[in-house]
Amino acid sequence: MSKLLAVGTVAFDAIETPFGKTDKVLGGAGTYIALAASHFPSVKTAIVSVVGGDFPEKHLQLLRNKKIDTSAIEIIPNGKTFFWSGKYHNDLNTRDTLATELNVLADFQPKVPEDFKDADLVMLGNLHPLVQLSVLDQLEKKPKLVVLDTMNYWMNNAWEDLQKIIRKVDVITINDEEARQLTQEYSLLKAARIIHKMGPKYVVIKKGENGALLFEDDQVFFAPALPLEEVFDPTGAGDTFAGGFVGFLAQTKDISFDNMKKAVIYGSTLASFCVEKFGTERMEILTQKEVERRLNVFKKLTHFDIDLD
Amino acid sequence: MSKLLAVGTVAFDAIETPFGKTDKVLGGAGTYIALAASHFPSVKTAIVSVVGGDFPEKHLQLLRNKKIDTSAIEIIPNGKTFFWSGKYHNDLNTRDTLATELNVLADFQPKVPEDFKDADLVMLGNLHPLVQLSVLDQLEKKPKLVVLDTMNYWMNNAWEDLQKIIRKVDVITINDEEARQLTQEYSLLKAARIIHKMGPKYVVIKKGENGALLFEDDQVFFAPALPLEEVFDPTGAGDTFAGGFVGFLAQTKDISFDNMKKAVIYGSTLASFCVEKFGTERMEILTQKEVERRLNVFKKLTHFDIDLD
Repeated sequence: MSKLLAVGTVAFDAIETPFGKTDKVLGGAGTYIALAASHFPSVKTAIVSVVGGDFPEKHLQLLRNKKIDTSAIEIIPNGKTFFWSGKYHNDLNTRDTLATELNVLADFQPKVPEDFKDADLVMLGNLHPLVQLSVLDQLEKKPKLVVLDTMNYWMNNAWEDLQKIIRKVDVITINDEEARQLTQEYSLLKAARIIHKMGPKYVVIKKGENGALLFEDDQVFFAPALPLEEVFDPTGAGDTFAGGFVGFLAQTKDISFDNMKKAVIYGSTLASFCVEKFGTERMEILTQKEVERRLNVFKKLTHFDIDLD
Repeated sequence: MSKLLAVGTVAFDAIETPFGKTDKVLGGAGTYIALAASHFPSVKTAIVSVVGGDFPEKHLQLLRNKKIDTSAIEIIPNGKTFFWSGKYHNDLNTRDTLATELNVLADFQPKVPEDFKDADLVMLGNLHPLVQLSVLDQLEKKPKLVVLDTMNYWMNNAWEDLQKIIRKVDVITINDEEARQLTQEYSLLKAARIIHKMGPKYVVIKKGENGALLFEDDQVFFAPALPLEEVFDPTGAGDTFAGGFVGFLAQTKDISFDNMKKAVIYGSTLASFCVEKFGTERMEILTQKEVERRLNVFKKLTHFDIDLD
């Protein structure tokens, strides 16, 4: 078994898309990451997070049913769970945030469980860089790989702390606009090169429906997003991608560039399911058979055969 | 030898990008298509087009030096050559048209040369659908493959004629926004299905820097655009893609879906060179060795190895 430590929000989301809207449903980066990673049988995942007394036991039970360790999801009985509400525009590529209530997240002090202080891989989901740093500080053994996800909000509001955590990680996952903002470079090739210099050996640039790029120095790999009939709700797709990526690496215990390519494909595959229904609905019922079938579709989508010297 | 008949503008362009601007330089869909197709040694390409007396002999000589048959580029001595001028925005994905002077193109009556009335492949570059129809009407033998390129302008201004030509072609190349406009469907999968019903057996949807999709019924293939350090000038990239696509098919004489995948990769590869300099500059000096090297980069960019049943 590999141990995967995931830190990230476990939250309520209220989502509106052109196809409908939800009341408060289960959400949060930590949730999506762990649900994606739960598809790898020899990976034991623990989520470090915090929720309020209003968080239903059934959500925690759902995670535990997927063999996810929820013991480090702290419950603050008289606090309220982090809540995000957003409305997607017609193209589903852009959205307005309608509400962000930090609630218990405002004073979140992450506590890494004893038996995950020697985690093999660490996935730092999008959170304040100081929270991400605190998780690394609590480890007793250097993990094989630390993956960081972050977003433009921290570039605008916690630049110095963000630089500190970026220096300490092996992989960063970031979307194209954020990569441009972080580096002031429009070309993603150049942006990746600058980010390498900030610390991470591997850079993953996510382009939503236009796929993802993986960089290691001068090597580049591209994975498309699967063309879908209908994108129903993009919420959680990026976190699902990250969870699939890191879950695959934990499962295979191989962090070579060649294996990271496959990890990107797994991440894209899982994300392609995530967007098919509202919130976590699709991920809750996703089977291994479905994943394998879609990996085959991915292969057909991208493989060609040109003989060259 | 395969015979490729290309109809399309041979023109003057004046281009402004964030990196500089040009005076009137050689441009036009027919020019870019033929320059791209000239990379395939066993393909004989003829351009059907029209220019004015102001069109310099050196431009025609340049095409002839690439073994392109220019005998069907009609010269109207007292007419002026078609002129387009545009300014690209900072992201290079959008542009403003500053001037469009149809000139000799306004009364263009295409004349297919005798020895290309039995062309093996026909590439109908972006022009009025009636001009494209007239080219097909002049053929004496059904070509192995007819490829159509068009744009939103004709959807807005010549809908009925556009439908007629779409019904008669085997392949359509079109960009993502145009596919959506043509079908009123946002999902490109659904859009491709509707376009299939309009006539074309194969649909190629170009997404600029986000690659291209090839559809045949339920089969889909995706080719990324090569991530580049710098896109200098996108003018002609779509036509170069089309020329590389059809040139490869003419060279290999194989119009199976598997071979079309390779054709899409060749088209993307050639287009990735086109944008590196202003206008046709890069295509004029491009060598076979450079093309092969970049095909290898493409292969590395997209290939992964996941064993599945």
